[in-house]
Amino acid sequence: MKSVCLLGSTGSIGCQSLDIIAAFPDRFRVFALAADSQVELLAEQARRFNADAVVIYREELLPQLREALAGTPTRILAGMDGLLEVAGAPQCDILLAAMVGAAGLLPLLAAAHAGKIIALANKEPIVAAGHLVMEAVAAGGAQLIPVDSEPSAIFQCLQGQDRGGLVRLLLTASGGALKDLTTEQLARVTPEAALRHPTWRMGRKITVDSATLMNKGLEVIEAHWLFAMPLERIGIVIHPQSVIHSLIEFRDGSLLAQLGMPSMRTPIQYALGYPERLAHNWAPLDLLQVATLTFAPPDFSRFPCLELARQAAMTGGSLPACLNAANEVAVAAFLAGQIGFLDIPRLVERALAAHAPLPCPSLDEVLTVDQVIREEVGRWIGVRSGGA
Amino acid sequence: MKSVCLLGSTGSIGCQSLDIIAAFPDRFRVFALAADSQVELLAEQARRFNADAVVIYREELLPQLREALAGTPTRILAGMDGLLEVAGAPQCDILLAAMVGAAGLLPLLAAAHAGKIIALANKEPIVAAGHLVMEAVAAGGAQLIPVDSEPSAIFQCLQGQDRGGLVRLLLTASGGALKDLTTEQLARVTPEAALRHPTWRMGRKITVDSATLMNKGLEVIEAHWLFAMPLERIGIVIHPQSVIHSLIEFRDGSLLAQLGMPSMRTPIQYALGYPERLAHNWAPLDLLQVATLTFAPPDFSRFPCLELARQAAMTGGSLPACLNAANEVAVAAFLAGQIGFLDIPRLVERALAAHAPLPCPSLDEVLTVDQVIREEVGRWIGVRSGGA
Repeated sequence: MKSVCLLGSTGSIGCQSLDIIAAFPDRFRVFALAADSQVELLAEQARRFNADAVVIYREELLPQLREALAGTPTRILAGMDGLLEVAGAPQCDILLAAMVGAAGLLPLLAAAHAGKIIALANKEPIVAAGHLVMEAVAAGGAQLIPVDSEPSAIFQCLQGQDRGGLVRLLLTASGGALKDLTTEQLARVTPEAALRHPTWRMGRKITVDSATLMNKGLEVIEAHWLFAMPLERIGIVIHPQSVIHSLIEFRDGSLLAQLGMPSMRTPIQYALGYPERLAHNWAPLDLLQVATLTFAPPDFSRFPCLELARQAAMTGGSLPACLNAANEVAVAAFLAGQIGFLDIPRLVERALAAHAPLPCPSLDEVLTVDQVIREEVGRWIGVRSGGA
Repeated sequence: MKSVCLLGSTGSIGCQSLDIIAAFPDRFRVFALAADSQVELLAEQARRFNADAVVIYREELLPQLREALAGTPTRILAGMDGLLEVAGAPQCDILLAAMVGAAGLLPLLAAAHAGKIIALANKEPIVAAGHLVMEAVAAGGAQLIPVDSEPSAIFQCLQGQDRGGLVRLLLTASGGALKDLTTEQLARVTPEAALRHPTWRMGRKITVDSATLMNKGLEVIEAHWLFAMPLERIGIVIHPQSVIHSLIEFRDGSLLAQLGMPSMRTPIQYALGYPERLAHNWAPLDLLQVATLTFAPPDFSRFPCLELARQAAMTGGSLPACLNAANEVAVAAFLAGQIGFLDIPRLVERALAAHAPLPCPSLDEVLTVDQVIREEVGRWIGVRSGGA
């Protein structure tokens, strides 16, 4: 029986994770649940799974959560302190990190230092501070298992293989909701259109990242850290069917790939059950029904985020933290209708150009860069919105 | 440094294996080479690789081989006794079994009992007597590594995976040279047409087996034994590009696949170097160039050999040995222009119908069935040819 601490329980990954935990009551139990602001759903989840503890990130919602959980034995915590307490607690066997954004960095580091099994769905912290995360994982003896479908595919393929013979990782990308639009059409895209992903049902932020291809850029950086692979040996191929989730290539000319339906359940369940594969009750992939798989190169000119992410990663230091912060703010502004779709790469590019990267930033420096860039990009958007 | 005993050195797999051995002179050396009848080529290979021993299977060619190797220190052997001596010799580290047909059974058993690493390209022995081969492998503590691309793909995918979670093997098939012909067209097919394989360059017998889909049927039986997988959990999918070499499916909805160019070099090199992956100097697979992969169900009515093989395997006992012997004789007769393409499944079906299978045949019984069926099918062909 493993006790799970689930950060981001009310999000898309969080809800699917709880479905899986519910399906294996003899293997998993909920130790703690944490959410940003959805008090009602969090309280309902806490009751259903008899959570020992819950955390609401927005401290102003604490009284409301207390009321919703009145009469239950569940401990009620709030803010970053609450997240850090449950992530590093002795009762936590597995941290399922499913928060959105770099806000997940500190709890991730806490779990890493405490030597937890970490199922990682939240890629922004490792993008912003990969060197710090990997240091903490090594120092604490933690085990990092990716949940995102592409790095999960690579992780699955690498099991039991000759790492010395590995020459390349190949990440597949659906191409997102807007892959066939011209630059002119992209300029006029609404949040609703960007959120209409052709193959994956995911949270809003990652769906927009998928449409800009920033998500793939972030995955390149994530894969670089997770698998200790030089950036120039991580390729990207557009694969609209989202059936092959990624591939690894060996020096003998052989490639291994992981395939499946475009569902997050398989990688979540894999990460929770690892190294065992648990049974599922959803429809398996039928290659005869899929019938055709296609592959094409990514278009860097229409989707500049991919190249921006790669450049930030090549420079390294604090530049990926800058990239990520600018992107988080820009995506939120796009979803709020404040800026256009193509303003996302423009703002990220401007932030990267304005930032003088620190070569090997400390945790404090990463957090400062994150904060400063958020404020700066926010001001740019404010000025622009004001001027419109 | 591993010493290789290569049975079938003058065939397609044999020649490609020697190229690989030549490319890694610090890892592999040739202990022994064996061929059916190509004396000149065998002698040339023996000189080039300083083989300790050579075996010519057809004993009447011994004087000719002695002459061709006069003045060399190479030991010269002949016949089945010669094969058995080199296959089980202490100087042999790896037996590369690349003979054609069930004739490879006895040397394979000798190497298995002697606990060798066996790189298995020769599938007929395991089809004819899988229970005896697997018993010998277990008793001798041998290690069986498949060389054929499909079982090699499965073997590669299975490394380090949770075997308990495995639910299915999925063998891919190119469909062979004749996959788009009607039954009427198949009836008139020449050996030249059947040998024109769209994606793979292989020996003549396996290329015809590929055109009848018997090769896939034999692979189902081989995979059943190699991976201890029930027959009903081994599927077949037609994949004309021959890029995905096979897949395995887990109970969590995840599939792993091995991909590569349709070249035997990768699986041969993998088997020789296992568990290490050695570098190659041929062009790797480029998914962008391939661009499209397709999948379709096999057509059992136009290609009845697939179903005949499956039925023989389901009944088991001596029936797969009967299937294989009938097929070997029929393919040889087709290649000699004595029978038509559709006579291959007809003769196999007739042989299966006429054979009263022994439930768990001994080695002697397998060899007797093999001999009796060959004579019987040979008579049927003789009568037919005589009558034509």
